[in-house]
Amino acid sequence: MSEQWLPTLITANPEEGFQLAIKLSRLGVKFTQPDAAVRDRLRPEYAENADSLTAASQVVAINFATVAQANNYWR
Amino acid sequence: MSEQWLPTLITANPEEGFQLAIKLSRLGVKFTQPDAAVRDRLRPEYAENADSLTAASQVVAINFATVAQANNYWR
Amino acid sequence: MSEQWLPTLITANPEEGFQLAIKLSRLGVKFTQPDAAVRDRLRPEYAENADSLTAASQVVAINFATVAQANNYWR
Amino acid sequence: MSEQWLPTLITANPEEGFQLAIKLSRLGVKFTQPDAAVRDRLRPEYAENADSLTAASQVVAINFATVAQANNYWR
Amino acid sequence: MSEQWLPTLITANPEEGFQLAIKLSRLGVKFTQPDAAVRDRLRPEYAENADSLTAASQVVAINFATVAQANNYWR
Amino acid sequence: MSEQWLPTLITANPEEGFQLAIKLSRLGVKFTQPDAAVRDRLRPEYAENADSLTAASQVVAINFATVAQANNYWR
Repeated sequence: MSEQWLPTLITANPEEGFQLAIKLSRLGVKFTQPDAAVRDRLRPEYAENADSLTAASQVVAINFATVAQANNYWR
Repeated sequence: MSEQWLPTLITANPEEGFQLAIKLSRLGVKFTQPDAAVRDRLRPEYAENADSLTAASQVVAINFATVAQANNYWR
Repeated sequence: MSEQWLPTLITANPEEGFQLAIKLSRLGVKFTQPDAAVRDRLRPEYAENADSLTAASQVVAINFATVAQANNYWR
Repeated sequence: MSEQWLPTLITANPEEGFQLAIKLSRLGVKFTQPDAAVRDRLRPEYAENADSLTAASQVVAINFATVAQANNYWR
Repeated sequence: MSEQWLPTLITANPEEGFQLAIKLSRLGVKFTQPDAAVRDRLRPEYAENADSLTAASQVVAINFATVAQANNYWR
Repeated sequence: MSEQWLPTLITANPEEGFQLAIKLSRLGVKFTQPDAAVRDRLRPEYAENADSLTAASQVVAINFATVAQANNYWR
């Protein structure tokens, strides 16, 4: 991966923070399964399964907690 | 999505904070499965399954922790 | 739901705080499955399953962390 | 339950704090399944299953985080 | 168990902190299944299952968060 | 393991912090299953399963929260 895949946790607003949380969640997957072709093949397996989507949302929630705290909750 | 889907984490009271936590949980799902028709089709799969409901409540709990802290617990 | 379903996170003592954590956990379920008849039907599915009870206890634990912090741990 | 089931989160040391975390985890189960006979019947289901034991340990870990913070980590 | 199974959360460095997190994770299991013979019998069930190992690592991660905070991150 | 497997939680930037979170997640697995041959054999079991990858990403997220806080979010 290029050097600039995670330059900072600071974002301009909550929306960019939420998108960074999604990026972090995907990075966690990418480092475990670096092969993009495999990841693409697996996509329908979870994107059309309710419990898998809940699990994905949970990882985003955990990462969003980190990003939100880093940004002092954009208060 | 429109620009205003997450303008702030600050809410007037705990009830609005809890509803924001629910919204964040659903946003986590939407970003993984952007197709509303698929999400609607999956709904009965988890809304009528006890363990799926517990899992959904867990994601809300994690997001509520973030929102509550952002609001200094509405003390 | 009536307006007063979550007036505050502040409680008089740890016991009331734990009960609030249980209430928050159930609220997370209610917002996903608003139909009380369905929730009642699902009850035996998890109340008599060991892993489901552990999962329910985990959601309570996450919410209790929030409530306890809101109350400065009733120190 | 008697009034004194959770008088305080403050404990004398880490060991008592860990035991309180276990108690909190069991309270989360008790409130969902108040019938002790059912809980006893379910016990072998998870006490002899590796994944169930890991899940139980996770709930204890979450509650221990709360208790440890309440006690300022017994520093 | 002897009185000295958890004397302190303070450790000399991150490595000892990580090992304490592992100990805490195992203590959570021991209190639920005190019979060492049963735990030994269950060991292959999870030590050779990828998802079980991930779940075990998650409990360690939660406990490590507590230990790291107790030690002010060994800064 | 050699003595230097976790010298510090402090990293130069978020990217190194994320990689440390991955390392911590793998350490949690290694301590439970020290046999590298077994771990290698299990790898395809989760690296090609969507839910397993989500679970792995969740452990990384939990560890990243710890590392990010240790580094004061690299602010």
